Amino acid sequence: MALRIIPLGGLGEVGKNMTVYEHGDDLVVVDAGLAFPRDEHLGVDLVLPDIGYLEGRRVSAVVLTHGHEDHVGGLPYLLRQVDCDQVIATKLTLGLIKSKLDEHGLAAATRLEEAETGRKIQVGSFTLDFVRVAHSIPDCVAVVLETEAGRVVHTGDWKLDHTPVDGLKTDVGRLAELGNEGVDLLLGDSTNAERPGMTGSERLVGEAFRTLIPLRKGRILVVSFASNVHRMQQAIDVAIQVGRKVAIVGRSMRKNLNIARGLGYLDVPEHVLVKPQEAMELPPSQVMILCTGSQGEPMSALTRIAYHDHPAVSVERGDTVIISAKPVPGNELRVHDSINRLAKAGAEVLHQEIAPVHVSGHACSEELRTMLSLLRPRAVMPVHGEYRMLAAHGQLAREAGVPAEAIVIAENGSVVELQPGRTPQIVDRIDAGLTFVDGLGVGDVRDVALRDRRRLSEDGVLIIVTTLASSNGGSTAPPELIARGFGDSDSFLDELRDEAARVLEELAAEDITEIKLLQEHLHDAVGQVVYDRTRRRPMILPVVIEV
Amino acid sequence: MALRIIPLGGLGEVGKNMTVYEHGDDLVVVDAGLAFPRDEHLGVDLVLPDIGYLEGRRVSAVVLTHGHEDHVGGLPYLLRQVDCDQVIATKLTLGLIKSKLDEHGLAAATRLEEAETGRKIQVGSFTLDFVRVAHSIPDCVAVVLETEAGRVVHTGDWKLDHTPVDGLKTDVGRLAELGNEGVDLLLGDSTNAERPGMTGSERLVGEAFRTLIPLRKGRILVVSFASNVHRMQQAIDVAIQVGRKVAIVGRSMRKNLNIARGLGYLDVPEHVLVKPQEAMELPPSQVMILCTGSQGEPMSALTRIAYHDHPAVSVERGDTVIISAKPVPGNELRVHDSINRLAKAGAEVLHQEIAPVHVSGHACSEELRTMLSLLRPRAVMPVHGEYRMLAAHGQLAREAGVPAEAIVIAENGSVVELQPGRTPQIVDRIDAGLTFVDGLGVGDVRDVALRDRRRLSEDGVLIIVTTLASSNGGSTAPPELIARGFGDSDSFLDELRDEAARVLEELAAEDITEIKLLQEHLHDAVGQVVYDRTRRRPMILPVVIEV
Repeated sequence: MALRIIPLGGLGEVGKNMTVYEHGDDLVVVDAGLAFPRDEHLGVDLVLPDIGYLEGRRVSAVVLTHGHEDHVGGLPYLLRQVDCDQVIATKLTLGLIKSKLDEHGLAAATRLEEAETGRKIQVGSFTLDFVRVAHSIPDCVAVVLETEAGRVVHTGDWKLDHTPVDGLKTDVGRLAELGNEGVDLLLGDSTNAERPGMTGSERLVGEAFRTLIPLRKGRILVVSFASNVHRMQQAIDVAIQVGRKVAIVGRSMRKNLNIARGLGYLDVPEHVLVKPQEAMELPPSQVMILCTGSQGEPMSALTRIAYHDHPAVSVERGDTVIISAKPVPGNELRVHDSINRLAKAGAEVLHQEIAPVHVSGHACSEELRTMLSLLRPRAVMPVHGEYRMLAAHGQLAREAGVPAEAIVIAENGSVVELQPGRTPQIVDRIDAGLTFVDGLGVGDVRDVALRDRRRLSEDGVLIIVTTLASSNGGSTAPPELIARGFGDSDSFLDELRDEAARVLEELAAEDITEIKLLQEHLHDAVGQVVYDRTRRRPMILPVVIEV
Repeated sequence: MALRIIPLGGLGEVGKNMTVYEHGDDLVVVDAGLAFPRDEHLGVDLVLPDIGYLEGRRVSAVVLTHGHEDHVGGLPYLLRQVDCDQVIATKLTLGLIKSKLDEHGLAAATRLEEAETGRKIQVGSFTLDFVRVAHSIPDCVAVVLETEAGRVVHTGDWKLDHTPVDGLKTDVGRLAELGNEGVDLLLGDSTNAERPGMTGSERLVGEAFRTLIPLRKGRILVVSFASNVHRMQQAIDVAIQVGRKVAIVGRSMRKNLNIARGLGYLDVPEHVLVKPQEAMELPPSQVMILCTGSQGEPMSALTRIAYHDHPAVSVERGDTVIISAKPVPGNELRVHDSINRLAKAGAEVLHQEIAPVHVSGHACSEELRTMLSLLRPRAVMPVHGEYRMLAAHGQLAREAGVPAEAIVIAENGSVVELQPGRTPQIVDRIDAGLTFVDGLGVGDVRDVALRDRRRLSEDGVLIIVTTLASSNGGSTAPPELIARGFGDSDSFLDELRDEAARVLEELAAEDITEIKLLQEHLHDAVGQVVYDRTRRRPMILPVVIEV
């Protein structure tokens, strides 16, 4: 029986948020993440994979490779839509999602199963196995999915890191063993496939902290993703060395610190931690603040600090802010804005463009070559990346000896079929768009609403209201015009009102009283005057009311 | 008499587009550029400095340091608003602006004066002198402005480049001479002040072209800024070496090539050039296409090619696209989109993240230190940069021995006064916002319109139209609701209509008939229901018509 593989989700990144594996009646979903909206998704809060394909079906297991939002953040939405027997993940990942499920009131109804490397789990016709990989959050695994169709290795996000902070390296021994046993298909992280060489070890950031922090006398703020437990550990270790107390600022960072600490993934002596208010009362040379906001998110701790709008923390001349992260594409201007504001407040700001305070969590091309050499897969399906990255990963696979016809560059919604002893093929395509979360609504804001928002955002809106006496079809009052976002002057609006009145008179003279026709004529005539005079195209909404 | 210096324009960059120098009644304006709008400037086409301070006054001279749009693109708008005796610039810069003034019908009325290095020009009480500097367009100068208040050096955009393509290096000899004569104030380019080391020479890009292009068999597309004449020259030189014909695609690149060629800044034998249509009929190995679109601009040549929407040019498997530019912050996603589309079409895309196909045009910190050492200015005013860059440049000046009190970090609109023998000071502040060009309108779209567009773009608009019989104050028809960009379902709109009707009935029962009050109540009551049910806040526009 064939195994069907369907990548889903991600903004232009294939299979970034979710991959569906379907073998007969058994469905295993690997990862259930979300994406953060871009400027083009006007007003949208979150972007989920469209899971229409799964709705109403029983999912045997959701397997999570690691605890990042783009791999687990959509889990509550998925669990509300499908019947799911169990969620399988490693200890830290389970810890992180537990609090998420609690918040959504789903904890009681969800069976959680802990994944351990080296212990296989049988899920229907799937045998699942887990291999340790390094990344920018602890406790990450690659997943091996074995069915009678063949053996698939799904890397999740990974890098090689021979000196990870927790000593838990990518298990090259086990990967080589799998290569010897035979891998039919590799689904591999392509994020850095275009980049030459090797990604630096997470430990390099610790070295930068050890170099930079002891030289500074003011407060030190270290800003990173809330989930980057190793980064926090390394910063805290330096704080302890130089006698600084540590305050954690930002809800998600406090939450993650508590979870990671409780499960033994983070080693922080109690006496080191102080509350933010207490930290601000200590001499600046005795303080380190760990906080969120590395992407310039409007309501995040760092942004509020940069805008002098944080209830507890402020920066001043002599302070140093270390932004230990890279802006996700699209967030550059926000991050630059934070840096400028902090610099204006007198702080020195160290960021990845000018200091070695960040490393990527993803494998570069030489690491991908290493993975290909270890696994020697018969076929490769590059995932987790934009098309250009998938193409680069495919090229690396070809150079590693994988035949061109065994390299599958799929899109979200592509159905890739693996059959025993056969090269995998794209055999079908399912609807696989994006589901927008806006406020409380999940999926009710669709492309047409976004198109309208886009139009409104370009040139605003012009509303023409007129009344029509149902008795004789004549208009009973002069038209009213309301403009918003349009750069209107009163005299120009008067002119447009005259034009609208002229159109109505003309139509009345021709005995045209059908509301639809009146609206069309008003729309076209007024729109033309607006365009001729301004070269703008506001959304024009004529309203004709019969009274 | 004091010299007053006022930086203007630029999106968060101080004095990027324009600097006003005022000495008694004499006004000299250095540069008259524009900025390209960001996503936050919804629907805006261009962003100009607010020149209200100059309006109705006589400008003795507009001096242009070089021909980039952010330094000359606002000239036609400036010339329409002020009386200007003359525009002074070097030969190529004059060539580039002439066609711009022609298009705006301003060529006849504008006196153009050619600046030459080593020849001083007297403008009222100003003595102007020009010093050769290297940048990413030929024929750039720093401007020396001398008045009885002192000697100011205004660098414009520059880098040190000891091996520029045209051999015209930054004139360190003349700069050293100026340093010996005494410089009272330096206004220096701060763009790369945060970056350590030296910017690579433009020649490095030529070396990359010479390495990469001969290896390729398909068509070569080289994408750069339309003004980067040296980049074009280097690409064309390699094309000639390897026997490729060259087609120029994109209006602005064709125009600039013709101007630069006509003035002798570009050396292209006639037989090398072919029309795009002809190029596409040649064997791919014999073709190079130079085109615009390095920023992913929606209507640019490269974007249209990437979307299979260009009338003449297309890419296919085997072609190579070299994007020889860096995305301006904010344009990253658009550029990535172009790269993905081109990769999907089968092209190999080389860009600055993965190949040495671009160098910056701006001096890094060691070059800025060199400038400070050559000029030994008594005071420094960092310009051309965001606050963090100005702060970094200020720090370099301090390390070079400039006293802290002689380092002036100004903002746009700051009035900096230089008096003989005194440290320059910020003495005043003028209104200096931004002027938006939207369609044909210059300055009529203001912040309030942008705020409305932002609001409309977030959650759309909901219009409630109701009528009121002037006779008795009762409503004569049920309210009508129109929603756009709001994610509306019919049943929800029905519910909101009922709420509106309920409010109107309630108010009628209380004999409240004042239109303003009715509108307020409708706005608040319906808005609350929308928010409670959806957590969204569309713009709500109640229209009450008396009939």
